[in-house]
Amino acid sequence: MRPLREDEKASPAFVDRLVRAATRKRSHVVVGLDPDYESLPLALRRRGAGGLKGAADAVMEFNLRLIDAIYDLVPAVKPQIAFYERYGIDGIRAFVRTVRYARSKGLMVITDAKRNDIGTTAAAYSQAHIGRVRLAGRGVPIFDADALTVNGYLGSDGVLPFVEDVVTHGKGIFVLVKTSNPTSTEIQDVTAVVGGKRLKLYEVMAHLVDNWGKRAMGDCGYSSVGAVVGATFPAEGRRLRKLMPRTYFLVPGYGTQGGTARDIVGCFNKDGLGAIVSASRSVIYAFEAASGHGDARFADAAREAVVKMNRDINAELRRNRVLAW
Amino acid sequence: MRPLREDEKASPAFVDRLVRAATRKRSHVVVGLDPDYESLPLALRRRGAGGLKGAADAVMEFNLRLIDAIYDLVPAVKPQIAFYERYGIDGIRAFVRTVRYARSKGLMVITDAKRNDIGTTAAAYSQAHIGRVRLAGRGVPIFDADALTVNGYLGSDGVLPFVEDVVTHGKGIFVLVKTSNPTSTEIQDVTAVVGGKRLKLYEVMAHLVDNWGKRAMGDCGYSSVGAVVGATFPAEGRRLRKLMPRTYFLVPGYGTQGGTARDIVGCFNKDGLGAIVSASRSVIYAFEAASGHGDARFADAAREAVVKMNRDINAELRRNRVLAW
Repeated sequence: MRPLREDEKASPAFVDRLVRAATRKRSHVVVGLDPDYESLPLALRRRGAGGLKGAADAVMEFNLRLIDAIYDLVPAVKPQIAFYERYGIDGIRAFVRTVRYARSKGLMVITDAKRNDIGTTAAAYSQAHIGRVRLAGRGVPIFDADALTVNGYLGSDGVLPFVEDVVTHGKGIFVLVKTSNPTSTEIQDVTAVVGGKRLKLYEVMAHLVDNWGKRAMGDCGYSSVGAVVGATFPAEGRRLRKLMPRTYFLVPGYGTQGGTARDIVGCFNKDGLGAIVSASRSVIYAFEAASGHGDARFADAAREAVVKMNRDINAELRRNRVLAW
Repeated sequence: MRPLREDEKASPAFVDRLVRAATRKRSHVVVGLDPDYESLPLALRRRGAGGLKGAADAVMEFNLRLIDAIYDLVPAVKPQIAFYERYGIDGIRAFVRTVRYARSKGLMVITDAKRNDIGTTAAAYSQAHIGRVRLAGRGVPIFDADALTVNGYLGSDGVLPFVEDVVTHGKGIFVLVKTSNPTSTEIQDVTAVVGGKRLKLYEVMAHLVDNWGKRAMGDCGYSSVGAVVGATFPAEGRRLRKLMPRTYFLVPGYGTQGGTARDIVGCFNKDGLGAIVSASRSVIYAFEAASGHGDARFADAAREAVVKMNRDINAELRRNRVLAW
């Protein structure tokens, strides 16, 4: 990649926008929008009689009402594209409308798609999600999220095409380093020997991410090339925080997967920044557990779950003297 | 996963269908359908005046005419979904029609999407591409390819949901083991220490793939859980062939990326089976190099490139006394 001149860089950088939004809303939370038609409140599910389109429409209405309920409380939402792709073209349409609606309400959107490939193929994914497609001499945005998750198993060839768009368009990526699932150990925790030293494979990935991120530093001192670090492995989170001091972490695994406020403190820096914590099922399906609500009030239940998650995380950070506000 | 009863298994298995088609057509070649609107023949590109829909329509017509030109020569095509996703919803529609048209011409379809996630999310991807989505008590196929590429960085949690659909619906997956790009070394070639032995990380992945595949053995003696092994690393290909004797390889990197017939011989077993070799740009853009053709005859140029690739690979296998027919 040719180095960009200062005046070519998009401003403000993704990570600066993220830090500003988190600070303004006093929230380190991102809400995962992973809607499963079969799990929606009954009132919405009735539409499903209309096949794939009915299911996709119901999913979209669910999302829009969730966004209305939580947009003032969190900096970002994270739609997981698999949950839309599985309803085919209608599902992708629901995804597009969800992204646009969230952005219209001032939310940042992190598309969780874990894309990965090399060269022109990686560039094509990047164009679709965070860049522009060139058509008749113009650059056309397609899904236009603020950031995208990326799988780095293919090395630099697979990540640098995304970094290019991060820098040019003021977007972000989060590269999988240590994922929240139990069997992430099978590959990510393999003992690796590099330069005579023994380390874990996820530490090798961390060094790569740190290096890729140098080209995308924001004014806030963090990079717009972030890392995915699961809440369910707190010791690994602390270790990775030290290895990648300027990398913003996207931390899944909070709530339903078992991660707690105490588990994620080590993912933050002393400045009270450096991580956003994602919860999906424990927020969007909060109505299932909320005895005071009928399932028609799913949005209220989601709002309460987010208020509680913000409070729990901020209180834990305060206890550990790492709160930015 | 609960073990399936014998009568629950789909028949025939993906790998059996693949071996039968390859044998009938005397071809170990899969053609990658990775169309870039800006690289299409001029006659098709004029439609691009119509924005994204025009570009997607042009891409689709390109594919349909390519399929007409090569369907009798090869067992399978491999659309790379990034090249469709980047034209948004219209692009996904072109992808869907390409898959259906290819299957209607008797071709198997391997969707190259390198999907990866865990639990219900991995299951959602799998439903979209090779399984069924449950709606109102029915299982609805969505994109319905014959096989899908998968990235295994998340371990068994990320792969077994796909294996479930492989077994239930007679489909296949190919898990990334050693990719064809130069920087695949950065992660995949890291020296790993497992049980006191030193090996490469791609060998650790190979052991996992071999193990996942045991549940999906076809009558032909190979598994429907395959591996991606790049043509550009012949020594590694030979090594992996020994480590995964019953795994079918999808071998990218032939042609434009530099892999030759000699480089891929080691990916085959002595029975003359065990690999399908993929080429994309060197086939679909063969018209650019073919002086005898105007660019309107792109389909003829692609057919000639496939005939030559079949001949080169079969001749090399014959020289090495590994040809199944």
